[in-house]
Amino acid sequence: MQTDSTIAAIATAPGMGAIAVIRLSGPESVEICEKVFVPERKGKLLSKQKAYTIHYGSIVENGNIIDKVLVSLFRAPHSYTGDDMVEISCHGSPVIQQQILEILVNNGAQLAKPGEFTLRAFLNGKMDLSQAEAVADLIASTSESGRRVAMQQMRGGFTNELQLLREKLLTFISLIELELDFGEEDVEFADRTQLNNLVEEIDSKLGRLLDSFKLGNVIKKGIPATIAGKPNVGKSTLLNRLLNEERAIVSDIAGTTRDTIEDVMVINGTAFRFIDTAGLRHTTDTVESMGIERAYSKISEALVVLMMLDTRDEVEQCVKEVRTLAGKLTKEQKMILLLNKIDLAGNERVSQLEKVLSDEFSEFQQIPISAKHSQHIDKLVEELASYSKVKKSDGDEVIVTNIRHYESLLRAHENILRVNYGLKSQIPTDLIAMDIRQVLHYLGEITGEITTDEVLGSIFSKFCIGK
Amino acid sequence: MQTDSTIAAIATAPGMGAIAVIRLSGPESVEICEKVFVPERKGKLLSKQKAYTIHYGSIVENGNIIDKVLVSLFRAPHSYTGDDMVEISCHGSPVIQQQILEILVNNGAQLAKPGEFTLRAFLNGKMDLSQAEAVADLIASTSESGRRVAMQQMRGGFTNELQLLREKLLTFISLIELELDFGEEDVEFADRTQLNNLVEEIDSKLGRLLDSFKLGNVIKKGIPATIAGKPNVGKSTLLNRLLNEERAIVSDIAGTTRDTIEDVMVINGTAFRFIDTAGLRHTTDTVESMGIERAYSKISEALVVLMMLDTRDEVEQCVKEVRTLAGKLTKEQKMILLLNKIDLAGNERVSQLEKVLSDEFSEFQQIPISAKHSQHIDKLVEELASYSKVKKSDGDEVIVTNIRHYESLLRAHENILRVNYGLKSQIPTDLIAMDIRQVLHYLGEITGEITTDEVLGSIFSKFCIGK
Repeated sequence: MQTDSTIAAIATAPGMGAIAVIRLSGPESVEICEKVFVPERKGKLLSKQKAYTIHYGSIVENGNIIDKVLVSLFRAPHSYTGDDMVEISCHGSPVIQQQILEILVNNGAQLAKPGEFTLRAFLNGKMDLSQAEAVADLIASTSESGRRVAMQQMRGGFTNELQLLREKLLTFISLIELELDFGEEDVEFADRTQLNNLVEEIDSKLGRLLDSFKLGNVIKKGIPATIAGKPNVGKSTLLNRLLNEERAIVSDIAGTTRDTIEDVMVINGTAFRFIDTAGLRHTTDTVESMGIERAYSKISEALVVLMMLDTRDEVEQCVKEVRTLAGKLTKEQKMILLLNKIDLAGNERVSQLEKVLSDEFSEFQQIPISAKHSQHIDKLVEELASYSKVKKSDGDEVIVTNIRHYESLLRAHENILRVNYGLKSQIPTDLIAMDIRQVLHYLGEITGEITTDEVLGSIFSKFCIGK
Repeated sequence: MQTDSTIAAIATAPGMGAIAVIRLSGPESVEICEKVFVPERKGKLLSKQKAYTIHYGSIVENGNIIDKVLVSLFRAPHSYTGDDMVEISCHGSPVIQQQILEILVNNGAQLAKPGEFTLRAFLNGKMDLSQAEAVADLIASTSESGRRVAMQQMRGGFTNELQLLREKLLTFISLIELELDFGEEDVEFADRTQLNNLVEEIDSKLGRLLDSFKLGNVIKKGIPATIAGKPNVGKSTLLNRLLNEERAIVSDIAGTTRDTIEDVMVINGTAFRFIDTAGLRHTTDTVESMGIERAYSKISEALVVLMMLDTRDEVEQCVKEVRTLAGKLTKEQKMILLLNKIDLAGNERVSQLEKVLSDEFSEFQQIPISAKHSQHIDKLVEELASYSKVKKSDGDEVIVTNIRHYESLLRAHENILRVNYGLKSQIPTDLIAMDIRQVLHYLGEITGEITTDEVLGSIFSKFCIGK
């Protein structure tokens, strides 16, 4: 891993904006910037300026002013990467951004690879590996809860604890290896009771972290939800209504999230991810009249099922539909019954259906709606919001969201169970030592104390450029 | 125009980036930011810090850390808007951007309208109106030459001159009005020879600026070009080849320009805009065999015509096609003859056609190509590049690109011609004074010395938000 070059990249989102920021990091950052930057106040040398200061001037190439910019100075080690850094804030035309980047490259900077700034921060000891990964998660977060979990991880949420446990374990392993050095002599430097307690502690900690992964995944990717129901019951109409409603509810401000990720909507800061809804929408036409059997085989992925009924249908028919689907749900899955098309059905019919359904399916919330005329969609949104609150109230508990961490935790857990078993069944110390080494290895993989270029490469290649 | 509020907006391009910047401007910028920002080094009050400094810390809401950010401080009058300003550089997740913006709004900031930062800069006298407009052009520039013209205008390129001429004219008008005050007495305070010279100078200056508009428009929007030729001669294939070629030539770096504007390609920093090519492509099927008459009525808009011939056609047929089109071109229009499908025609036929064409049409460059197999496309690109160089070499000359300026210049010019005529034909001084007042008015419109809320509203509404 080469870290003595000076790298450059556009750090703001691609496309046109009021301003854009181009980043430089590395030992020659200030030098390279000085070659192309003419400060407004003549003679004010960039390299003589203090860190954490901002300077107005022009980026100049062959005597031509390319743009008027602000230059921010950072000096090692007090910068994001830990190296000298410069940030150039220019007018946000893509042409200008690209041209300034080219000029920096022509003057000695190298184009940064995805995540290379954060990789350097990691290599310079500014953050551990899980914190670095949290930076990527933070940037990619599409919901308030996703942001919160990533932020907690970036602040060192769970790796601090793991590191502490790992250090304690390290002490024991060195004592145990000392025992092994004495060979046949029957010495015991490592207190087995204390070791046992530590192993139990690690076991329970890892168990809790592993359990949190399912929730973590939900938070990161959104609560998987689906809209079920026979063809033409109004599923896509409802989806569109919800997406509109969401825009109005979440914020009057921007709405950028919606544009980038299809069919994810954020209610009260929690993302709901409609899985395969489009697919379901397409396939419903080809399946048998109920439209549920085959098309909703994927329903097991959902945590929330919005079951739509046509209120005009025979009550028997509706009950049958609900019964079929209810039989496929697990305990964790929540279902909401939506009695759709109430505008066409009449109040009497609605009450009749409501009564029959609540008799047989008291566990499911019922909401009579008209997707077409946006009637009572607000009630549904409220219901979803309350569900997102439950998910949110888990509060400050540490949550694992990263599949790489999950896998390392899983292996560490397997091995700590073996250590536990080994201690209890008095198997030879050298075998226990091997298992402990494995635990240390997998815990170290999470924090980055043990890592390979390959692992690093794979982690940072998923970052965006400029970070 | 209210300017004592504190406004906020996301200033970087929408969507996900490594970082994003949120701007605050107005008297309470620092105060509002201080309410939500907790500096990393405790007790380091933001309001006590110097201008042009950067501070690391957290945006906090109800005790929760929303993001770790950098805050840049600017103080009136030394900021972009001329008011106190704060820029918050956060992680580039759309969720985070929006959340921070919401927090700022909840703490007293108002959402900025499009261009409101620049509007304030104008109202605070940081720039004149044409400079403000140049900021928008600069951000929207899609080519190197577009950027250059906008930059020149932003630096006060032509308004400085106009302002100078306008001030001289103001001196004369006050003298002339003094004359009028004396009523019937035959006094002459304003030196008529000097006034005459000034009027001639303004006349010639305005004439030159008006002439520059055509070129300015070309630079701003790209050199209008079209690919002509009968159906199936390979027009869309060529366009695709050119667009690919362009990507390779212009830069290996980004390519954001291409993604936003269809059928504009940048060669050597100059944009070529293919006008109505898609339309031509569609309509060619329905027109008569030559495919030129009707479909290319719009050809008059193009400055460059790429005339494609099928080398396998009868020589007579090709000559006829070229002759028809050549008859419709003006002197300003450049035509390149592309002998396409040489891979199918054989060398002998190519030479034969080349000879006949150069005998009759020596003024048009010929390039034998195969659009399908990318043969000699590089030669065409070189030819276009050389054309863009000619357009570029006009260098530092002042160029008008803005239709609003053009219209004001046109009216100012009409009136200065009337003043000129009036001076020569000795018409009553009060009538001349009226015409001079008109000239002053229209010149003032360009620089913004004379303006209305309506005009300002229309200008700044075209800006992007955050600028």
